Amino acid sequence: MSNETRYEVLTVAEIHDLVTTVLLANGCDAENAGAIADTVSSAERDGCLSHGLFRMPGYVQSLRCGAVDGKARPGVTQTAPSVLRADLNLGFSPLALVLTRPRLIELTRSQGIAALGLVRGHHFAALWPEVEALAEAGLIAMAYTASRAAVAPAGAKQRFFGTNPMAFAFPRGDKPPVVFDQASAAMARGEIQIAARDGHQVPPGMGIDLDGNPTTDPKSILDGAQLPFGGYKGSAIALMVELLSAGLLGDHFGYEAHEKANPASGVQQSGELIIALDPSRFGDPGWLQHSEAFFARLTGMGGVRLPADRRRQVRAVTTREGVKVSRPLLEEIRRLE
Amino acid sequence: MSNETRYEVLTVAEIHDLVTTVLLANGCDAENAGAIADTVSSAERDGCLSHGLFRMPGYVQSLRCGAVDGKARPGVTQTAPSVLRADLNLGFSPLALVLTRPRLIELTRSQGIAALGLVRGHHFAALWPEVEALAEAGLIAMAYTASRAAVAPAGAKQRFFGTNPMAFAFPRGDKPPVVFDQASAAMARGEIQIAARDGHQVPPGMGIDLDGNPTTDPKSILDGAQLPFGGYKGSAIALMVELLSAGLLGDHFGYEAHEKANPASGVQQSGELIIALDPSRFGDPGWLQHSEAFFARLTGMGGVRLPADRRRQVRAVTTREGVKVSRPLLEEIRRLE
Repeated sequence: MSNETRYEVLTVAEIHDLVTTVLLANGCDAENAGAIADTVSSAERDGCLSHGLFRMPGYVQSLRCGAVDGKARPGVTQTAPSVLRADLNLGFSPLALVLTRPRLIELTRSQGIAALGLVRGHHFAALWPEVEALAEAGLIAMAYTASRAAVAPAGAKQRFFGTNPMAFAFPRGDKPPVVFDQASAAMARGEIQIAARDGHQVPPGMGIDLDGNPTTDPKSILDGAQLPFGGYKGSAIALMVELLSAGLLGDHFGYEAHEKANPASGVQQSGELIIALDPSRFGDPGWLQHSEAFFARLTGMGGVRLPADRRRQVRAVTTREGVKVSRPLLEEIRRLE
Repeated sequence: MSNETRYEVLTVAEIHDLVTTVLLANGCDAENAGAIADTVSSAERDGCLSHGLFRMPGYVQSLRCGAVDGKARPGVTQTAPSVLRADLNLGFSPLALVLTRPRLIELTRSQGIAALGLVRGHHFAALWPEVEALAEAGLIAMAYTASRAAVAPAGAKQRFFGTNPMAFAFPRGDKPPVVFDQASAAMARGEIQIAARDGHQVPPGMGIDLDGNPTTDPKSILDGAQLPFGGYKGSAIALMVELLSAGLLGDHFGYEAHEKANPASGVQQSGELIIALDPSRFGDPGWLQHSEAFFARLTGMGGVRLPADRRRQVRAVTTREGVKVSRPLLEEIRRLE
């Protein structure tokens, strides 16, 4: 196929409209559909394909089998002076994140540090949008979520941990925040799924097959187990993410999400912990200038770029020229309307 | 040399006495000496040689050159309802950690989550003792500290980040907590220093020389730069540690610690951020049993051990049989009395 037959160029607004239409046709209300469309279209705009339109069949399947309530609203309780707990009532997380954010921001500003635990929800999206939004409000933010078992702990031959992303964002005043969002797995599962779909091998060190042997075949890894990044240290990060998002909050550990996943859809619920800190409440009035001097030195080194720089470069291009979307994927999504 | 001439066996109490005597002879008061002796002897007891007696010449050198005040007490202020800030007044961190711990525990229990920033102090020790102590009090704890520039950011050829450890501990009721403490560098700097001292090569991937070329020679790495663990993901963790312990708190970034280090002693001050969470305040009364079921599954997998298991195995042996200490190191330390 030529590029023109393989891809179609859509504006970010057109992607937003398509996602909204598909979700409204499958049981979401307008608020949930709009929040998910914001998330999916932002991912496509920023080149995060594994969290963009690629996820739409999953969203729709989970609605159609009844595993997820497309009209849910979160119920928020304050469990301690600096802690909020949001029960997502089996809904998707994007709207819950939008609705709970103002309370988390307000609490963090008044307390200096605060936490928000989101439970009984469904996360199909990346974590960076929520920490980025908090950093745009002037806060430092960290987020953790355990996903369905996919990763072998260091030393093991079977999957047990989720891919378990963690995200971090640091505010930079008028500049865009520094943001990173990384799986504890050596490679994001969505990227391995895309490699399997497109028939590409993945680099060595990304996973093992069902017998525990190293492989570069994405399908064998999806059946077997992914490996953590950086060996036992990445495995320790994955363990921490399990304990913060499932052990602390009382939601599913990776192995529970795997065992309890809806057989019709593969959908699993999971918890997410967000910790936010207000840098103006830690006792150093010069924190912003001091940090900016650090960023100036860091980016002045050859070869270094800040996390999220690539996303912003892609954003500049897609905002101007639109997003190239795989035509087979678009056709699959349009059949879901 | 035979083993008997290379090593001397000391009890943990004898190590504690030796450290106390040396520090009292070099300007520490009894409380600071006792707290450091607890830290150093615990490290030797648990097999963490790079944070044990190996550090004693550094402690003494920093006292003798006047960079560190061996009689300092921390000044603690509450900068927000859930945030404490401790000014270590250019002292060592062990006593400050002991003195501030009860307030952090109390604040975390009342607020659900709390933070303690320690600034203008000197950290020669590992981070695991402080998070372990908080987990023994029933709290989840995380700690971060940026050290003197030693690690090249992903993509760079020169040192910029510190080795930047982070530590995490999770309470297990009557059982010892799960604890990990790991450098953002692929290898702890103390281990590379020990390899250089003992004339061993280090594995590939640990560092680069002054020209930015990969090397396994520990001396070339100590002159050049260490590498982060897990490539750009470990580099992102190192960045986060810089921003939390230096950017947020207003203490030295790794490059500042490097440039401002005392030329006589190499001593540098640095900040440390501790975040503590009370799992009983997050809304799941079953968090402990749920987490124990997870640990049972995890440790039931072949090949897996929990972080800190190795330390506890070593502890069982050294408590019974004493600690084998390098005789040249012991002789060097005894000359410091």
